Amino acid sequence: MCTASNYITDDHYFGRNFDYEISYNERVTVTPRNYVFKFRKIDDIKNHYAMIGIAAGIDGYPLYYDACNEKGLAIAGLNFAGNAVYRQFEEGMVNITPFELIPYLLGKAASVAEARELLAEINLVDINFADELPLSPLHWMLSDGRDAIVVEPMADGLKIYDNPVGVMTNNPPFDKQLFYLNNYRGLSNRNPENSFGVDLEEYSRGMGAIGLPGDLSSASRFAKVAFTRANSYSDSDEASSVSQFFHILGSVEQQNGCTFIDEPDLYEYTIYTSLINYLLINEEQFNFIN
Amino acid sequence: MCTASNYITDDHYFGRNFDYEISYNERVTVTPRNYVFKFRKIDDIKNHYAMIGIAAGIDGYPLYYDACNEKGLAIAGLNFAGNAVYRQFEEGMVNITPFELIPYLLGKAASVAEARELLAEINLVDINFADELPLSPLHWMLSDGRDAIVVEPMADGLKIYDNPVGVMTNNPPFDKQLFYLNNYRGLSNRNPENSFGVDLEEYSRGMGAIGLPGDLSSASRFAKVAFTRANSYSDSDEASSVSQFFHILGSVEQQNGCTFIDEPDLYEYTIYTSLINYLLINEEQFNFIN
Amino acid sequence: MCTASNYITDDHYFGRNFDYEISYNERVTVTPRNYVFKFRKIDDIKNHYAMIGIAAGIDGYPLYYDACNEKGLAIAGLNFAGNAVYRQFEEGMVNITPFELIPYLLGKAASVAEARELLAEINLVDINFADELPLSPLHWMLSDGRDAIVVEPMADGLKIYDNPVGVMTNNPPFDKQLFYLNNYRGLSNRNPENSFGVDLEEYSRGMGAIGLPGDLSSASRFAKVAFTRANSYSDSDEASSVSQFFHILGSVEQQNGCTFIDEPDLYEYTIYTSLINYLLINEEQFNFIN
Amino acid sequence: MCTASNYITDDHYFGRNFDYEISYNERVTVTPRNYVFKFRKIDDIKNHYAMIGIAAGIDGYPLYYDACNEKGLAIAGLNFAGNAVYRQFEEGMVNITPFELIPYLLGKAASVAEARELLAEINLVDINFADELPLSPLHWMLSDGRDAIVVEPMADGLKIYDNPVGVMTNNPPFDKQLFYLNNYRGLSNRNPENSFGVDLEEYSRGMGAIGLPGDLSSASRFAKVAFTRANSYSDSDEASSVSQFFHILGSVEQQNGCTFIDEPDLYEYTIYTSLINYLLINEEQFNFIN
Repeated sequence: MCTASNYITDDHYFGRNFDYEISYNERVTVTPRNYVFKFRKIDDIKNHYAMIGIAAGIDGYPLYYDACNEKGLAIAGLNFAGNAVYRQFEEGMVNITPFELIPYLLGKAASVAEARELLAEINLVDINFADELPLSPLHWMLSDGRDAIVVEPMADGLKIYDNPVGVMTNNPPFDKQLFYLNNYRGLSNRNPENSFGVDLEEYSRGMGAIGLPGDLSSASRFAKVAFTRANSYSDSDEASSVSQFFHILGSVEQQNGCTFIDEPDLYEYTIYTSLINYLLINEEQFNFIN
Repeated sequence: MCTASNYITDDHYFGRNFDYEISYNERVTVTPRNYVFKFRKIDDIKNHYAMIGIAAGIDGYPLYYDACNEKGLAIAGLNFAGNAVYRQFEEGMVNITPFELIPYLLGKAASVAEARELLAEINLVDINFADELPLSPLHWMLSDGRDAIVVEPMADGLKIYDNPVGVMTNNPPFDKQLFYLNNYRGLSNRNPENSFGVDLEEYSRGMGAIGLPGDLSSASRFAKVAFTRANSYSDSDEASSVSQFFHILGSVEQQNGCTFIDEPDLYEYTIYTSLINYLLINEEQFNFIN
Repeated sequence: MCTASNYITDDHYFGRNFDYEISYNERVTVTPRNYVFKFRKIDDIKNHYAMIGIAAGIDGYPLYYDACNEKGLAIAGLNFAGNAVYRQFEEGMVNITPFELIPYLLGKAASVAEARELLAEINLVDINFADELPLSPLHWMLSDGRDAIVVEPMADGLKIYDNPVGVMTNNPPFDKQLFYLNNYRGLSNRNPENSFGVDLEEYSRGMGAIGLPGDLSSASRFAKVAFTRANSYSDSDEASSVSQFFHILGSVEQQNGCTFIDEPDLYEYTIYTSLINYLLINEEQFNFIN
Repeated sequence: MCTASNYITDDHYFGRNFDYEISYNERVTVTPRNYVFKFRKIDDIKNHYAMIGIAAGIDGYPLYYDACNEKGLAIAGLNFAGNAVYRQFEEGMVNITPFELIPYLLGKAASVAEARELLAEINLVDINFADELPLSPLHWMLSDGRDAIVVEPMADGLKIYDNPVGVMTNNPPFDKQLFYLNNYRGLSNRNPENSFGVDLEEYSRGMGAIGLPGDLSSASRFAKVAFTRANSYSDSDEASSVSQFFHILGSVEQQNGCTFIDEPDLYEYTIYTSLINYLLINEEQFNFIN
């Protein structure tokens, strides 16, 4: 489905693979500070942090898949089918639809810590963008270079998890994903000592990670990308970091043909890989409507 | 299909699981020293080492599946479908049928070393025991407490391999089995250090062998039983050794229901587990016909 | 650590492997109907269902590891280190210590359904049996031939799960164990069709379950025993069922030497395998003190 | 270490990942038809097919890692440490050094079939390019769009294998690699039917290939890239084929940091990925020295 990751060297890099069988003509979309965000159940927001990211622009509204604001807070929404539960309108809460969450959080929060405070008030209401556009079941990863969290709207409430591994895929819920990673704790980027009990040969480099899964299911991608990111090595300058980041997400790329979907009889594959580093963003960009 | 193993403590233990969908009423069969073994292409052998083992006794001829002689040389024949090739009669060789190999070797050899010399002269001829009893495709493991070898009649000749792991199953040929074991060289009976790159939990004992296969295919049984035998711990006395030996072979037991065979619509399962220790054999037994 | 399973043919069989590095001289222990059970925080129970099981008998008190009562309700307590949380005394609840849970439930409940009602009132209080005998962190599996449940005392409350697979091991908590099983949904007791995309050989029977783990960690034992039980085939008579049951638990036996424990420098292994079928219990046994 | 692959749509694409810890400044190198190739033990070749590929150019001699000639025959040499055996000069054979093999074959053969005939006469002699440049242990994959073969200089002779999967990595020898692939025959790009025996959930797309390895050892890369290539889907035009080819090899890319080499204390990673399609080659290029 999808994979998100951050990467922290001298700077903070964030992005995702968007894996799906259909493209909705997503493209890089900038929202300047004074673009008026309309919300379904709360007042319009007329001034907010500027943001840049990938969005399907429908009816002039940027439906962000992943984005970063001018303060360096980044977020990505990924498929969470079968687990995401949205709710009825609830008095006393900040009632935000799932498709409004990215604009709301990036518009108001300068950091993960601030987003966390906003999230404590949020009720994700079950309101479609349009009749023909039902809500996607989603969960979100937020990252700012200091902190990273995962936000999951579960049947028993909105869960917020610290994300110590800096990656997220899809099902199962994040606490399960993180737990299953324990099975791989003995894997390493070094060849293992022979501890089997009989004399065995070291016939290849890279044998220390034997057991790491290579299929494209969400739990396997989680393990693979977590290992790749955790062992990643690059220089810390911009060019090296950007290059390495695409290699990290490349490790769980979905090649066309490898994941067949009965309905609608298509292959899911990696449609785009995004990378956002807010320092790359031109200050003027964020004011261009002014 | 089957698994053979030896186990060496103060003494030499040898045996096998016989995994199949049909039993041929195999039973413990003793052949005393002066039982006349008739052979198809060589002279009768009237005096030989006595032997004990599991055999299907048909027409008064002990068709041994596995056996040990009074000198402590043990042997087991296991299924080797698709790889075993038997040959035309060849002048100048000792032409032995596959079903005669165990009587021939155990009758004449006091050790693996002696059996190896005999094997250098042997041509395994393609002659059925009876029209209704076609030859099984087989390979053999021999063991005497000092040495262990595997004998495989391949298309390009009779291969003899040292067996450093003391176990044998079925396909693929032994050199491939042994090579694939290299993939498991990092497995251990101790919990692994965390080397993944992020903080991960040791949530169970026994995590050092994660990656060891648990299905019942021949290559997976090979890895599982090799690990179990290599890490086996027991006291060295008779009772402890015998008990532990059955646990070693128990680790790759085929439970009824877990391996379905289309033809003949039956389950393959472990029909018997044998253990032979020649010291257990009563001297008188070997002479009882005298 | 341990594995519990039920097995249902014409009758209900229940038991467990007890895997540990030290034996406390556990033995078969019968508690007749009028043996007075003393409890720490509730009144003595003078009349109750009779029960039989494996217990360490200390100071005349049967510390049951697993047992079955005369109505056919069976239960086993297994290690749940790092997850089990016991609580302070709570007014208005039935305050039971973990070591009293088996006598309490088996003494009063004739079925899983009745035990479930009792559990709704129970608070597992953090009281040792004795100063030198700290509480084990435990979770429990109950089974009666109709229903099976798992009871887990977690930090956020006493969890009760339906158990559709009829097995339990140790960590992680049961919902995670059950979820992880999804990764193995394509495994089968039949050889797989070739769907890889190139021509590949079926070189062994049993290849349909390749991917099933064979190490002895708790999550791997869970998958292995769940597969073995789910595919188990036996006649439904007593002798066949009993035999097959021991093979099911034998599939996850811990062979001595394969699990090394740094502290106290010993191997964990399967110390006993129990099987309880209440129909086997002699009616008189349950009254023998009378 | 390295991975080679071909990809056949309307045309024939061939290339490789070069994985190593040090770059020797490899670059695209064209050898025109009349460049005089000097050989150590045979006469100079003054006229030959033109070729293009990646080479380390040392002393004016193109040390090709992988290349394609004007007839569409492509070849790549990959590390084969511990298995490659080169030989003494042998009278009556065409004595070619390993570093001369690519120029010799591509210079004279228009197809895999023709190369196969040449190989029947070749003896790979153990002669260094220079004292400070010892021979690499190599094996080669050849491909022309109709046929693909693997050439391995083993202790018991120069082995030539048909390559039905169109990929090659490093150890073990190709027959073992191919055999081991059988373990993955049940993997698929479709989600599996539930055949485990209990009700289990399909929680992600891509679960049909669970069991495919994701580490970077040579046998795991072989399985991963073979699956990716076998299931690959793209349009057959040039742009689509080229794009897809890089995704195929991208599936086994070695990310920097994931494979640590003790000696010389560096990481091995994918230094380059090449793709050769001879139709891309400008005819004039091949004559530019003329």
